[in-house]
Amino acid sequence: MGLFPDTLEILIKHFERLPGIGRRSAERCALYILEMPPKDVQGFSQALVNALQRIKPCQRCNNITDRQICSICEDSSRDHSLVCIVEEPKDVFALEKTGKFKGVYHVLLGTIDPLESKGPQSLHLRQLLNRIDKGEIKEVIIATDSDAQGEATAAYLADLFKDKGVLLTRIGLGVPMGADLELVDIFSLSKALENRKPFSPNNQ
Amino acid sequence: MGLFPDTLEILIKHFERLPGIGRRSAERCALYILEMPPKDVQGFSQALVNALQRIKPCQRCNNITDRQICSICEDSSRDHSLVCIVEEPKDVFALEKTGKFKGVYHVLLGTIDPLESKGPQSLHLRQLLNRIDKGEIKEVIIATDSDAQGEATAAYLADLFKDKGVLLTRIGLGVPMGADLELVDIFSLSKALENRKPFSPNNQ
Repeated sequence: MGLFPDTLEILIKHFERLPGIGRRSAERCALYILEMPPKDVQGFSQALVNALQRIKPCQRCNNITDRQICSICEDSSRDHSLVCIVEEPKDVFALEKTGKFKGVYHVLLGTIDPLESKGPQSLHLRQLLNRIDKGEIKEVIIATDSDAQGEATAAYLADLFKDKGVLLTRIGLGVPMGADLELVDIFSLSKALENRKPFSPNNQ
Repeated sequence: MGLFPDTLEILIKHFERLPGIGRRSAERCALYILEMPPKDVQGFSQALVNALQRIKPCQRCNNITDRQICSICEDSSRDHSLVCIVEEPKDVFALEKTGKFKGVYHVLLGTIDPLESKGPQSLHLRQLLNRIDKGEIKEVIIATDSDAQGEATAAYLADLFKDKGVLLTRIGLGVPMGADLELVDIFSLSKALENRKPFSPNNQ
């Protein structure tokens, strides 16, 4: 016999599975649910089911959307000839939060991982290749992660696109901003040396 | 137009309302939901509705249960003549985690709060009074919070039970374990002085 009624224990277990929520926080959340107005609990329950049923990949870029085409792809004020390739929808949100990118995205929904025998068939590239073949795209920025899978994927994409007549770039890799140099890992430091740029007081 | 699809934004807002979950964690949780197997999301959604519909106050002690009588009240190995009075079901779980209490509980589901004009009618005492009147109870431990409402409630209960022929006790109030004395608030220190006990090497 556990401490909590079975019905509550099941709810605690569901909360505990979420990222960053430990047993103690999960208990607090579940007990909080019992004190919420019933319509708010029903709303939460429905919001979970709605997310499951309504959120699908954008038919153009694979980003998540609750419509056919995501709000970024539908935004005519953005530069649709500049495409940033990322692995997951999460990466789109991270880049959007910078407020610095005014192009559009293509989400691969996968990576190449030689260790797991995941080859190029893991990448969802069809719509992007169509857009490139139609001559709609001038520059492709490869913004896959800087880990082994992301680098393998970047290398594959660079090779795939090299004769397509588009400018191919990779996001800057090196020392993160705000870092104490002696604490930066050797791979980032090596990459930072390799990616050094001319520097003058007028060119920071 | 927000960063996230509306359907997802609604889910984020639900997560954000939970205790200890900020905007950033709520976003992580909502994005995590999108990656979960559909049956797990449905299970989570159903667990919320089940908690809402099935969890009720125990008919004997007001603790939460998904049956008529909670597992503590049903446990015949516990001492049913020793009743600990607490404000909320959360307090039951906190005390149970100590593993030190082998009696049963009575949950008031409220407090007396003179500042909010909440009098004794806020307390759910009926079942407890019945049990006392039947002579089932030998000792009542008052374990309401040590704040203004909890103290007002404790004083009211002490007066109510004083001629009922039960031993009446209050949980020990004073300096919490592991505390640095100079950092303990003056109210706890005052209470600790008032609640001092004889002390010898054999009586710690």
